Amino acid sequence: MLSQNHYDSIQLTPEGQLKHFLTIEGLSASLLTEILDTADSFVDMGAQQVKKVPLLRGKTVANLFFESSTRTLSTFELAAKRLSADVLNLNISTSSTSKGETLKDTLMTLRAMHCDMFVVRHSASGAAHFIAEHVTPDVAVINAGDGRHAHPTQAMLDMLTIRQHKGDFAGLKVAIVGDLLHSRVARSQIHALRTLGVAEIRVIAPLTLLPRHIEAMGVKVFTEMSRGLRDVDVIIMLRLQKERMQSALLPSESEFYKLYGLTEAKLAYARTDAIVMHPGRLTAVWKSNPA
Amino acid sequence: MLSQNHYDSIQLTPEGQLKHFLTIEGLSASLLTEILDTADSFVDMGAQQVKKVPLLRGKTVANLFFESSTRTLSTFELAAKRLSADVLNLNISTSSTSKGETLKDTLMTLRAMHCDMFVVRHSASGAAHFIAEHVTPDVAVINAGDGRHAHPTQAMLDMLTIRQHKGDFAGLKVAIVGDLLHSRVARSQIHALRTLGVAEIRVIAPLTLLPRHIEAMGVKVFTEMSRGLRDVDVIIMLRLQKERMQSALLPSESEFYKLYGLTEAKLAYARTDAIVMHPGRLTAVWKSNPA
Amino acid sequence: MLSQNHYDSIQLTPEGQLKHFLTIEGLSASLLTEILDTADSFVDMGAQQVKKVPLLRGKTVANLFFESSTRTLSTFELAAKRLSADVLNLNISTSSTSKGETLKDTLMTLRAMHCDMFVVRHSASGAAHFIAEHVTPDVAVINAGDGRHAHPTQAMLDMLTIRQHKGDFAGLKVAIVGDLLHSRVARSQIHALRTLGVAEIRVIAPLTLLPRHIEAMGVKVFTEMSRGLRDVDVIIMLRLQKERMQSALLPSESEFYKLYGLTEAKLAYARTDAIVMHPGRLTAVWKSNPA
Repeated sequence: MLSQNHYDSIQLTPEGQLKHFLTIEGLSASLLTEILDTADSFVDMGAQQVKKVPLLRGKTVANLFFESSTRTLSTFELAAKRLSADVLNLNISTSSTSKGETLKDTLMTLRAMHCDMFVVRHSASGAAHFIAEHVTPDVAVINAGDGRHAHPTQAMLDMLTIRQHKGDFAGLKVAIVGDLLHSRVARSQIHALRTLGVAEIRVIAPLTLLPRHIEAMGVKVFTEMSRGLRDVDVIIMLRLQKERMQSALLPSESEFYKLYGLTEAKLAYARTDAIVMHPGRLTAVWKSNPA
Repeated sequence: MLSQNHYDSIQLTPEGQLKHFLTIEGLSASLLTEILDTADSFVDMGAQQVKKVPLLRGKTVANLFFESSTRTLSTFELAAKRLSADVLNLNISTSSTSKGETLKDTLMTLRAMHCDMFVVRHSASGAAHFIAEHVTPDVAVINAGDGRHAHPTQAMLDMLTIRQHKGDFAGLKVAIVGDLLHSRVARSQIHALRTLGVAEIRVIAPLTLLPRHIEAMGVKVFTEMSRGLRDVDVIIMLRLQKERMQSALLPSESEFYKLYGLTEAKLAYARTDAIVMHPGRLTAVWKSNPA
Repeated sequence: MLSQNHYDSIQLTPEGQLKHFLTIEGLSASLLTEILDTADSFVDMGAQQVKKVPLLRGKTVANLFFESSTRTLSTFELAAKRLSADVLNLNISTSSTSKGETLKDTLMTLRAMHCDMFVVRHSASGAAHFIAEHVTPDVAVINAGDGRHAHPTQAMLDMLTIRQHKGDFAGLKVAIVGDLLHSRVARSQIHALRTLGVAEIRVIAPLTLLPRHIEAMGVKVFTEMSRGLRDVDVIIMLRLQKERMQSALLPSESEFYKLYGLTEAKLAYARTDAIVMHPGRLTAVWKSNPA
């Protein structure tokens, strides 16, 4: 993985504006707030009769999904269409090709097509950065998930949801529960929450599902729900990323859900006005809807 | 399968207008005629230089095809694009997922995307109704085929064709020939023909390919072409839905075509100005193009 | 394969204008120059803020890809969208269906949809011609590659590149290197180069990778790079079409690249201002990106 300075120099202009959107790490609170404010101005569009604005008319957005995801692809496709962009969906299986070569060839072809924006999803950490380093200066790259590294747009959507319900980030205690080890969303959420100034970020998981040195990200580690959920304002449930687990990190799945599944009894530890965010019903979603 | 009152309450507004289009059963003759008149006003568009009207501009149409069909999907996709809608195609295989969960998860995601219309095709009877019951009030659902139950848009297209050739439905004798047992289109056709007031609806098939109690739908049953085709104005040939046959309902396919295939000799039983409607050349189409 | 007169009568109007674009064979120099001039007028569009013109607004373009190719499909899709057409992508696998029947059924369906243009890619030589013969008079067919026969749009793009770099075709010596036997692009390139009036067309390949009687196309045959590349202005490298090779035409791949791969040493035989055109890095592209 690359150094933070390196990321900054890729995704920011010399004036500190976003050129690409690859990771939340290194972005300022004012930049994140600007993103949230912009998103807020589009929230009402979904309820309008004509859900279309000419913002990206005549621009071409290419969705490069090296890792398949119907839900995420549809979301980006629809967003681009509602902004009046021309959209290309490229589902690129990486299994049957020599990856490095294909990626460069694909980029050369897309460069010749004069696409304006690439939305990239890839199973390898750093893929979106690699692409951002190799595109022409007028192309913007958005990271829609790279390996275990980052998923900044999903995290910003979660921040928007928290702001809509809680108004302000200051003073909030937030708990993130479950498979932190494999979750790129959790990494991006932690960076965003810290930058936006919440009072406390907690992670609750068995030690086998926690990345090493996660305390260095500015979080408090808990292994028991009863202690970790105490008095929190926001609970973020992660799904078990079983497709990314390379060995037996869990004694059993039912044991995991017994200890870390959210029940009414456990929810009672949190503040009475706490909100719960989850990617679908946990027992089902990891089976059917990789996010 | 649900009761008729239940269908009515889902697809009609209290004022009797279409909210969803799930089945032809229960719709009035004036409503069907209104649909045909509207369709008629678009027929000329196909011949125009600019095949595009702004009717659905800023609306989002999601094609939810749980059952794959290139021809049907393309038709709906193109129709929506010519009406200026933004279109999302979602080919959702039901084989590898726990169906109930996925359907609900998918619907929750689509709800969050503020789609305006779902075009649903599913191998289970009642799927479009289920979805119509679970969407928010501002979403319209169109049934593009559910199991053996209904295929209302295909049937209305057939009614339009009959009206274009025959002018009026009153006085017409219509014969539907072949695999009535598995045909959702035939069910929708029978409801439409009866409501639009044809003089007589006949079904011609071996008893093994007829649903029980089909007489209750207001049709006359024939097992011989020579008698069933006598003096009819319209002949609708169905294809053998071999992919839906779960056991040996036919002694042999060649025997079936010998008895129920349409030849010039058999056609001579019908009126001299009879029209024949079929889904492609029968011997070939069931192999290559599931309609 | 069909006779030239037959091709002409299909793709040209009585006035000699293009009705379809199936092959370069038989087209006049002035017609090819008109295509290049038109293409030139769109080159700048890629650099503009709004990459969109209303030329095909309200028209429907159907991409009929019986042979899969992500790069080529994306290119045609994007071109049609930037010209404001409605676009249908139809990836039609020919493996599981009885080809002849499906093709006719598909054409009948597309005819009913009133598509304005079919872009056809097929593994069988003559497929685009067959379709052009069976469509209604108002439909235009573009050949995006048929078997070993022709790939006229790719060849015209290559001609545009040559003209951009060399200004004029007169006086040019052009060498085409590699698997001439399986290359439909090479056939189209040779027809275009001859018609546009280059001084000399050379093909360089082992005899096993040359079509019989290729000299009849007006080219000089070389089996050694050292002689074939001498003093050429343009070098066109072909990729090894291994997926189309039905038997062992090469002693070994590494032996082929040793003899016919382009190195700086071999490039030194050409003129110092020679340009090299290739479909990607040769050692990689045949693996990952069938063009």
